[in-house]
Amino acid sequence: MPKDSESIVISTGPIPGSQKVYAEHGDLRIPFREVALEESANEPPVRLYDTSGPYTDANFAPAVDEGLPRLREEWIRARGDVEEYDGRTLRPEDNHREAGDPNAFPDFPNLRKPLRAKAGGNVSQMHYARKGIITPEMEFVAHRENLGRSEFYGDGETFGANIPEFVTPEFVRKEIAEGRAIIPANINHPEAEPMAIGRNFLVKINANIGNSAITSSVAEEVEKMVWATRWGADTVMDLSTGKDIHNTREWIMRNSPVPIGTVPIYQALEKCGGIAEELTWDIYRDTLIEQCEQGVSYFTIHAGVRLHYIPMTANRVTGIVSRGGSIMAKWCLAHHEESFLYTRFEEICEIMKQYDVSFSLGDGLRPGSNADANDEAQFAELETLGELTEIAWKHDVQVMIEGPGHVPMHKIKENMDKQLEVCHEAPFYTLGPLVTDVAPGYDHITSAIGAAMIGWFGTAMLCYVTPKEHLGLPDRKDVKEGVITYKLAAHAADLAKGHPAARLHDDALSRARFDFRWRDQFKLALDPETAEDFHDQTLPAEGAKVAHFCSMCGPKFCSMKITQEIRDFADQGMFEMSEKFKAGGSEIYRPAGEVEAEKSADAAE
Amino acid sequence: MPKDSESIVISTGPIPGSQKVYAEHGDLRIPFREVALEESANEPPVRLYDTSGPYTDANFAPAVDEGLPRLREEWIRARGDVEEYDGRTLRPEDNHREAGDPNAFPDFPNLRKPLRAKAGGNVSQMHYARKGIITPEMEFVAHRENLGRSEFYGDGETFGANIPEFVTPEFVRKEIAEGRAIIPANINHPEAEPMAIGRNFLVKINANIGNSAITSSVAEEVEKMVWATRWGADTVMDLSTGKDIHNTREWIMRNSPVPIGTVPIYQALEKCGGIAEELTWDIYRDTLIEQCEQGVSYFTIHAGVRLHYIPMTANRVTGIVSRGGSIMAKWCLAHHEESFLYTRFEEICEIMKQYDVSFSLGDGLRPGSNADANDEAQFAELETLGELTEIAWKHDVQVMIEGPGHVPMHKIKENMDKQLEVCHEAPFYTLGPLVTDVAPGYDHITSAIGAAMIGWFGTAMLCYVTPKEHLGLPDRKDVKEGVITYKLAAHAADLAKGHPAARLHDDALSRARFDFRWRDQFKLALDPETAEDFHDQTLPAEGAKVAHFCSMCGPKFCSMKITQEIRDFADQGMFEMSEKFKAGGSEIYRPAGEVEAEKSADAAE
Repeated sequence: MPKDSESIVISTGPIPGSQKVYAEHGDLRIPFREVALEESANEPPVRLYDTSGPYTDANFAPAVDEGLPRLREEWIRARGDVEEYDGRTLRPEDNHREAGDPNAFPDFPNLRKPLRAKAGGNVSQMHYARKGIITPEMEFVAHRENLGRSEFYGDGETFGANIPEFVTPEFVRKEIAEGRAIIPANINHPEAEPMAIGRNFLVKINANIGNSAITSSVAEEVEKMVWATRWGADTVMDLSTGKDIHNTREWIMRNSPVPIGTVPIYQALEKCGGIAEELTWDIYRDTLIEQCEQGVSYFTIHAGVRLHYIPMTANRVTGIVSRGGSIMAKWCLAHHEESFLYTRFEEICEIMKQYDVSFSLGDGLRPGSNADANDEAQFAELETLGELTEIAWKHDVQVMIEGPGHVPMHKIKENMDKQLEVCHEAPFYTLGPLVTDVAPGYDHITSAIGAAMIGWFGTAMLCYVTPKEHLGLPDRKDVKEGVITYKLAAHAADLAKGHPAARLHDDALSRARFDFRWRDQFKLALDPETAEDFHDQTLPAEGAKVAHFCSMCGPKFCSMKITQEIRDFADQGMFEMSEKFKAGGSEIYRPAGEVEAEKSADAAE
Repeated sequence: MPKDSESIVISTGPIPGSQKVYAEHGDLRIPFREVALEESANEPPVRLYDTSGPYTDANFAPAVDEGLPRLREEWIRARGDVEEYDGRTLRPEDNHREAGDPNAFPDFPNLRKPLRAKAGGNVSQMHYARKGIITPEMEFVAHRENLGRSEFYGDGETFGANIPEFVTPEFVRKEIAEGRAIIPANINHPEAEPMAIGRNFLVKINANIGNSAITSSVAEEVEKMVWATRWGADTVMDLSTGKDIHNTREWIMRNSPVPIGTVPIYQALEKCGGIAEELTWDIYRDTLIEQCEQGVSYFTIHAGVRLHYIPMTANRVTGIVSRGGSIMAKWCLAHHEESFLYTRFEEICEIMKQYDVSFSLGDGLRPGSNADANDEAQFAELETLGELTEIAWKHDVQVMIEGPGHVPMHKIKENMDKQLEVCHEAPFYTLGPLVTDVAPGYDHITSAIGAAMIGWFGTAMLCYVTPKEHLGLPDRKDVKEGVITYKLAAHAADLAKGHPAARLHDDALSRARFDFRWRDQFKLALDPETAEDFHDQTLPAEGAKVAHFCSMCGPKFCSMKITQEIRDFADQGMFEMSEKFKAGGSEIYRPAGEVEAEKSADAAE
C-alpha cells in the first residue's frame, strides 16, 4: 500500500435506493437524501436529512488531493471581516516525526493560506447573531432542519424545549444569539455544510475517528470520516494520538463535508513526547492556532478540571477516565498549580473568536462506571463549565458542554436538568451514557439506551460509541454500526420530543411494511444494505421482494392481509352489525351461555 | 443430515471463564454462574444468575433422547394432589403431517404418562400460595433471586414497586398469592428450574424460537433453545407454525431447563389447514390439553380481541400485526361472533389449573408501528385483559399480561401505568417496545431502548427482538445477539430500580477494567467470547491481556494509570496542600495574573 494520497480510497455513490437531491432556496442548495417509493405507494418521495456531502451525489467525482468544493468561501469573504495571512509554519513535531522521516505521510498538496478575523474582529456565528445578522449559514441550517416537510406532527414531550413547527432563519439566529444552539463553522473549513447543534433542532450525532500509537493510517482515517458521514455522522472528531497527527487532520479537513472537532491537548501532548507535566501554555496555544488555521470547528477543552476537584476522584471506582481530564490532572498535580486551561480561558476565547471555533467544554471528570455517576467530582466540574460558558459568551464564542459517560437510567435526567440549569441552556453533547457496565462488546447498545433517553430529555448531540468501546479500536464495520445505532437513538429522541418532521419517516416505513413493499422498506431504512441482506438470508429469491408475505408466517397466513380484510369490511359498512356487541362491552364477563343466546338472537334477526 | 435425534447437536460446557456452581439450601441446589477473579483482584468470586441448566456444568453429559433430569418430579408427587393418566393420543395432524409421512421427525422415544390434578383439584403455584403453602419452587426462586449476595445497594427509582433487601420464601409466596408474580411451572415440565416473573424480582427475558412453513428443523430448534438459555433466556417460547409442530415441542420440552411458552392458536390453526374461520372451540380445547400434557408452562391467549374492538383497528397505519390477534379477528369477522377465547375463558381456566399453566394474556391489538401506539384499540383490549385477570385469579390461575410492540419513548410510561392500574399489578410481559420504525436490521437495538425503559418502569419480563425482526427468521447468531441485548436491557432496568444485587456485577467489572485485569473483564462480560474477540482484533498478542494499557491510548499514556497516581497522592496526604485552591473555588473566574501571583506566593512558602 503506497503511503501517499494514492492510498486514499473513499466510498462514493448514492445510498442504495436513495438519490441525492438539492432543494434550492435562493443561492443556497440544501442537500437531502431522497427516497422515491414504488408507484403502488401513491406517496411523494421521502426526504431525509443528509450528512454525506457530495460523495453520495452520483454526478460527483472526488479528487482527494484537491479537497471538496469550498461551499462557504464566498459567504465568508463577502462579510468583509477576514484577512488572509501567512499561517504558522509546519514543523516536524506537529506530526510527531523527526525531520525528513521517510515514513511520514505527505503533506496535503493544495494548501491555501488561512483566514482569520481582521485585527480586533470576531467572526463567530454567535457574534453575527447577536448583531441581528442572519448569515447564509443560519439560512442553510433552517432549510436543512425543515426536511422539506409540509406536514406536522406535534405529539411529544419536550421537557421545556421550544421546538417550532417550522424552522425560520430568524429562529436559528435567535437560538445562536442566545447560546441555545451552535453552528460549528470555522472560517478555514469552508468545505463543510452548515449544521446546528441545539435542543430545539434535530438531535445530532458525532463519530470519533483517529489513529493511535498502536494502529491506523492517514488513508484509513480519511475513509473512516467519509464512511461515518455516509451513514449519518453530523460531525466527526479526529482524536488521533499517534504519528502524522497534523497531516491526518489536514487530509480529513479538506475532504470533510461535516464540521471536525478535536481535543487539542492530545496533539500538544505528542509534542511533549507524551509527558503531561512538560505541557506548557505556549505549546498548547501554538497547537490551538495550528488547528484553528486548519479549520477545526470545535475544540474539546477540559478547562473545568480544577486542581481542587482532583481529590474528589480519589475514592471512585474508576477514578478519572477522560484522557484529556487525566492529562490535566497529572499536570496540575505535578506542578501543584491550577490548570492553565482554566487560568488562560479568556486568552483561549480571544484566539477562537478570530476563526469561529466553538468550545466543547470537556467533562474531564465524567464517571467511568455506573458507580461513579452523578458524584461530587462530576457535578463540581459541571458547575465550573457553566461559569466558563458565561465567560465564552461574553466574547461571543459559541459553546457546547460535554457530558457523561456511564450513568444508570434513574440518574440520567438529573444530568440533563443540572446541565440546563448551571450551563444556561448551552447545548449538551454527551457520550452515551452507558446504562450498565456488564456488556463489553455491546456498548454501542448499552450506551444507545442512555443516549436515546438523554436526547429526549434535551441533549443536542450524541457522541457515538462503537461495539469495540473499552476493548479495541473500531474498524470500518464498527464505525458503521456505531453511526447507525446512534442515528436511530437520535431519531427516537426526535420522535419522543415531537419534532414536527420526525414521524414522517417512521410512518412512511410503516406503511411500506404494511403494504409488503419490501423494496421501499429497504430503501427507507437507516441502513438499506443490512435490511436487504437480512431479508435475503431467509428468502433470497428476487420474487420474495415483491411477495405479499414474509418469512415469519409464510404465504398461507398473514396478519397484515387480514387487516386488509378488516378494512374492506369497514368500507362495506359491515361493522354496524357489531354495534350490539359494543353495547355489551362494558360488562366484565358474560358466561358462555349468555353469549350463545345472543348469537342465536343475532341469527334470528 | 439424518432426520432423527442423531441430528440434534447441542452446545455444552461452561461459559468461558465461568463455572457452574450450586448453592445448597437444604435439599435444594440453586445453580449459579460463578466467575473466579484473578488473585490480584483480592475479591471473592462473583455469582451471576444462571438460566443455562445442566448444559454448562462441566460434569454433565446430555442425552437428548432421555431428556434432562426431572428436578421437580419428587416435589410435585410429594404434594399428593396429582394423578398419572393415559394422555391424549398423538394424531398425525398434531404434526401437520399425513399418517406415515417418511419425512416426519421421530417421536420422542422416552415419553412418560402425563400428570394432572386429581379430580376437582388445583395444582397452581398461586393456589398453594393462597393456602399459605411455601412450595419448594418458591423457596428455589427465593435463593435464586438473592444471587448469594451479602451486600446491598438500594439506590434506585422503583416507581412504587416493592423490592425487598433480601428475598425470602415467604416474600415469594406472598407475591404469587397476590398475583404480582408468577412461577410458570407446569407439572408436566419437571425438568425446568423454577423462576419467577414479577416486578419485585429481577427482570427476566424471553427468547422466541420455532420453525415456520418456510424453514427450520426440529434439531435446529432444540439447539436454539439450549443456545438461548446458555446466554440468558429465562423462558423460551416455541412459536412453531410449520410441520412437526408437536414433536418439535416435545423434544424442546424434554431438554429445556427453562419454562416453555406457546401460542396454542398457532397449532390449532395448522390443524385447520391454516384457515382461521374453520377454527372451533373443540379443536382449540384439544390443542390446549395436548400442550398441557406436554408441559407448556404458559399460553399466550388473545382473549381480549373482542369482536367490537376490531373496527377500532381499521384506520391504523399497520392494522393488526399480532398473528394470534389477527387469526381471532378473522374468525370473529367470518362468524360475526364474539371470540370463543373470550366466551370460553372460564373453561380455559378449568383446564389450566389442572396442570398449572399460566396465562400470558396476549395483546392481539398491540400497535405495529409508532403511529398506532396507545390508541383506542390497544387500550380497550388492555382493559379487557384486566377483567380476564380477575376471572383467572378467581380460579387461582396465574396470569401475566402481554404488552407492545412499537411505542415512541414518550408514550412508554403510560403503557406501564395503565397496565398496573387496569390489570391489578399482574406481571407485564412486553415485546420491546421499539422506539422507532426506521431501522430494520437494528430492531434488537430500537427495541432494547424501549425494553430497558419499560423494564425500569415495572415490566417483569422482556420478550427479545433479534436483528432479523421484520425481515427474516433469526439464526443462531441472531438468537445470541437478541438474548445478550435483552439481558443487558433487563440488567439496566434492575440497576435503575435499585435491585439490591444488580450493581455488584457492574462494580466488579468496572474494577477489573480499572485495574487492567483484562481476563476478568472478559469473564465478567455477559458475552465473554465477543469481548475477548474484540480485544484481540486490535491487540492479539497474549501479553496484551495482562498489559496495563489498552489500544485506545497505547502504552505510553494512560488515564487509568494517572488515577492511580492520584490515589497515591491522596494516600500521601498531598492534597492538603491544595486547600488554598479549594478556598478560592467559589470565585467565578480569576484572571491569569491573579493565579500567577498566588503561584508565586505558594512557591515562596
